Amino acid sequence: MKRAKYALGLDCGTNSVRALIVDVRNGREVGTAIHGYETGEAGIVLDPADPNMARQNPADYVKGIETSIKRAVAMARKQDKSFDPKDIIGIGIDTTGSTPLPVDREGTPLAMKEEFRKNRNAMAWLWKDHTGHAEAAEITALASREHPEYLAKCGGTYSSEWFFSKILHCLKADPAVFNTAWSWVECCDYVPAVLTGTTRPESIKRSRCAAGHKAMFNEAWGGLPSKEFLSKLNPKLGALRDRLYDKSYPVDVPAGRLTPAWAKKLGLSAGIPVAVGAFDAHLGAVGSGVRKGKFVKIIGTSTCDVCVWPSNENLPDVPGLCGIVDGSVLPGYLGLEAGQSAVGDIFNWFVNEIQPGGPRKGSHEALTRKAAKLKPGRSGLLALDWNNGNRTILVDQRLSGLLVGQTLHTRPEEIYRALIEATAFGALTIIKRFEEYGVAIKEVINCGGIAEKNPLVMQIYADVTGKEMKIARSAQTCALGSAMAGAVVAGGANGGYATFSQAQAAMAGVKKRTFKPDPKAHAVYAELYKLYRQLHDAFGTKKRSGGLYNVMKDLLDLRDKQLRGK
Amino acid sequence: MKRAKYALGLDCGTNSVRALIVDVRNGREVGTAIHGYETGEAGIVLDPADPNMARQNPADYVKGIETSIKRAVAMARKQDKSFDPKDIIGIGIDTTGSTPLPVDREGTPLAMKEEFRKNRNAMAWLWKDHTGHAEAAEITALASREHPEYLAKCGGTYSSEWFFSKILHCLKADPAVFNTAWSWVECCDYVPAVLTGTTRPESIKRSRCAAGHKAMFNEAWGGLPSKEFLSKLNPKLGALRDRLYDKSYPVDVPAGRLTPAWAKKLGLSAGIPVAVGAFDAHLGAVGSGVRKGKFVKIIGTSTCDVCVWPSNENLPDVPGLCGIVDGSVLPGYLGLEAGQSAVGDIFNWFVNEIQPGGPRKGSHEALTRKAAKLKPGRSGLLALDWNNGNRTILVDQRLSGLLVGQTLHTRPEEIYRALIEATAFGALTIIKRFEEYGVAIKEVINCGGIAEKNPLVMQIYADVTGKEMKIARSAQTCALGSAMAGAVVAGGANGGYATFSQAQAAMAGVKKRTFKPDPKAHAVYAELYKLYRQLHDAFGTKKRSGGLYNVMKDLLDLRDKQLRGK
Repeated sequence: MKRAKYALGLDCGTNSVRALIVDVRNGREVGTAIHGYETGEAGIVLDPADPNMARQNPADYVKGIETSIKRAVAMARKQDKSFDPKDIIGIGIDTTGSTPLPVDREGTPLAMKEEFRKNRNAMAWLWKDHTGHAEAAEITALASREHPEYLAKCGGTYSSEWFFSKILHCLKADPAVFNTAWSWVECCDYVPAVLTGTTRPESIKRSRCAAGHKAMFNEAWGGLPSKEFLSKLNPKLGALRDRLYDKSYPVDVPAGRLTPAWAKKLGLSAGIPVAVGAFDAHLGAVGSGVRKGKFVKIIGTSTCDVCVWPSNENLPDVPGLCGIVDGSVLPGYLGLEAGQSAVGDIFNWFVNEIQPGGPRKGSHEALTRKAAKLKPGRSGLLALDWNNGNRTILVDQRLSGLLVGQTLHTRPEEIYRALIEATAFGALTIIKRFEEYGVAIKEVINCGGIAEKNPLVMQIYADVTGKEMKIARSAQTCALGSAMAGAVVAGGANGGYATFSQAQAAMAGVKKRTFKPDPKAHAVYAELYKLYRQLHDAFGTKKRSGGLYNVMKDLLDLRDKQLRGK
Repeated sequence: MKRAKYALGLDCGTNSVRALIVDVRNGREVGTAIHGYETGEAGIVLDPADPNMARQNPADYVKGIETSIKRAVAMARKQDKSFDPKDIIGIGIDTTGSTPLPVDREGTPLAMKEEFRKNRNAMAWLWKDHTGHAEAAEITALASREHPEYLAKCGGTYSSEWFFSKILHCLKADPAVFNTAWSWVECCDYVPAVLTGTTRPESIKRSRCAAGHKAMFNEAWGGLPSKEFLSKLNPKLGALRDRLYDKSYPVDVPAGRLTPAWAKKLGLSAGIPVAVGAFDAHLGAVGSGVRKGKFVKIIGTSTCDVCVWPSNENLPDVPGLCGIVDGSVLPGYLGLEAGQSAVGDIFNWFVNEIQPGGPRKGSHEALTRKAAKLKPGRSGLLALDWNNGNRTILVDQRLSGLLVGQTLHTRPEEIYRALIEATAFGALTIIKRFEEYGVAIKEVINCGGIAEKNPLVMQIYADVTGKEMKIARSAQTCALGSAMAGAVVAGGANGGYATFSQAQAAMAGVKKRTFKPDPKAHAVYAELYKLYRQLHDAFGTKKRSGGLYNVMKDLLDLRDKQLRGK
């Protein structure tokens, strides 16, 4: 038997880093470890005065990768006596995003410099930081007028979560940080650069995934938005463009090679390739086996829905998607990203904030057990899944939740089920949008905690969508996808793979248990979906609202006015 | 000092009878007692197989009045040594309604006869029995086509809760009971008849209140709906009309005089007058001091809103009211009745069924305490108060609850407050409807448990409506209103009063603490009310729906289909 070779996947999440060591022959996971970030609350630096703020300490990433890799290696050694860390042939990395951080001329994060150590604006601006919401609106407005093509690939609206909204906000809110920053780097570019000693901004191989989805990068218009465009937002932003980047790379390109210093520290071989980084959801889709016709749903607190389309086949712009980016998921394919702003978060809200039935009776387990006994349509309830806005297909954060149909007898488990169904209807709305624009979806592969642990959710998703639901075999598909990237940058000659399709064939898979739609339930849900769609269009679109488009927005405006008035 | 005279009020409620002995000089309540009905669950006979069914055993009324009066007398004796039951000069009676019961030629309820003892259809059909919903629709349809004037006085829709819906349903569902019944008698006619020995159907002085509000009785068209009309519904119903009644009476008319047998049993004077009966809400309004410009809200599980308008002043039909009946509240005045299908029931639903925060944290007290700290508009939530349908102004039971604006941070106390606000918006919608048709409302007097016990609810009602909220002085306004009727039928010569206006001046009053609208809060609620009205019209009316009128109805249809499919 040929000696085993391994790939290392690093998954830098919102609260922690996970390291995963995988046997490239069969996807066997031989060692894994998690290290939680130490700064702030569960790794997030908050501002009690501003609920929009969410920052991270870049030093946490550096410490996190060292600690988690060392512990994963130790675990692999313990579990498999024949394991040798020198047999790790490549490293792949995924992180959250858009999570940009300001760096100096050498690529050192400003937050690591003495003069900015306590300044939150010098830290990494975590994906869920919304301080740049006014700037996002400004960017959307200007692009709509002058460069609608910039927005066509990212759903028609530039988000406050994204690269330029954050940088423009920093420029206005903290000129000292903006003026000191030589460049800004995504977290998924920073981590590979650290491991490969390429942190000088002009040396970093920037992620196609981050650039294309969050920074309006597209080779069709010469990379990033034009200097003229950025200068209109602010001349200093235009000037910054020269210190950002002109090129971006998919994950089959090495960002560089592991430095001797890091190799020594980790016990790995110096010089093994480290892949260009990408976002967690995108490499999670790779780890779940995404390919043409296979739609991956990463279901957590929110969802990311990812599929791919061959770059050389024609595809119109699909309105409402979060992004369409060539090479963002797999090289040679357009990566198509959609998502729901809250899924698990809605269930958690109901259980943790509302606590129906009290601390014990209101558990996910108890409610799921009771909800599983209910029949579709039986409660008379219908909900919208917009407690955190709508990412796809409306791309509108100024929306809110809705529940209709409650009587004097409505039970908590009925509401719980209605909330699950609402997220399923939201998922179906996304799938329909893809299919309307020619992206046929033959298979749905789910991953993430809820897909793993809650068969009721999966059955409802099957019954609502009328499609079989499969579950990715690995419980850590993001890190697994990253490991595949490591195997691909290592290449066939070194025991890895020449292509992702080979890597996926060997390393990815689905669980035996799948969820098939029940035709009777599907028929009832088809009726309910019509009503969901009526509410969706009435509250979420201007065209078909019959005058209710204002309601959720007015309520939020009124709320914000009262908040400010305090 | 003139020797005290007393009046006795009997309030036959949904679960119990209350007897109240009142000093007619000043409204002082000297003795009171409650007797719970013994049959069924809290006095209600249910059918596990049919959630629409709610019946009562007429024998419970007879036992209840005896027991409660005896105990009230005992209490009065104990509290006031000078009290002598012989000084009770008259009796008034209110009951629930429409609560008709089938009786034989002598006026004996069929349920008291051996052959029907176990037959629920031979019992009293409690106001909240909805088994006749199909018949209600039939009656509404026929009246709309042929006699729209019948419906104009009762809100445009004949309800399943009312007299003829129930009788027609019995005719179809249980011909044996229908065919055996000589006549049908409202509970508020039966109880006075029992005390006065006038139970033979043709001897009973029928209540104007019951006849006018629930049986489409109006002298303008010769009393009850025409024989021709009833015969079209069913020839047997047409034939029954001859054995019902041609006349009806307001509460200042004696139904008869207390029989010697009852006088002996109760220790009262034989021959004292017993007033014609009326519904609880109507005599509750009297007990709260209703008069022109004074609007009474009886707030309990649902609400009844009552006001009056001089019979000799012109008033157009007000669409959506439950009823406009000459003399149903006060003689010489049109009684105008409106109401909300659920108020306290919605708060109870949230606390008891959803149990937010658990058994202790989810109490009314805890939620009220937290909700009181919130500012109007601050939660971003808005609800519709339709968990049990909408009685006024939409007159539509096929509606349901709605909550919009929830986020991932929404707290139970915010929902609780939104539900209170929803009922306040519902109350305002009713007040506006009255005022649009020329019924000026200068003062709002509230009564019932919630008005007594929850200052937060009263303050929100004041802030939402922009009107001062007062609370009736008595905690038992229905029984007090009945006692006033007893004082009026006794007459001035016997120590009572010639008119209700004199009786109210002496015996009714409001508490010192009132609730004045806060202008700032009112301004925010004015904004919220616009949005409430948008949702109200979108989901509740055909005209202005923008296509959402179907949503709640389709959900209920789908639910019922699933229920039947089981």
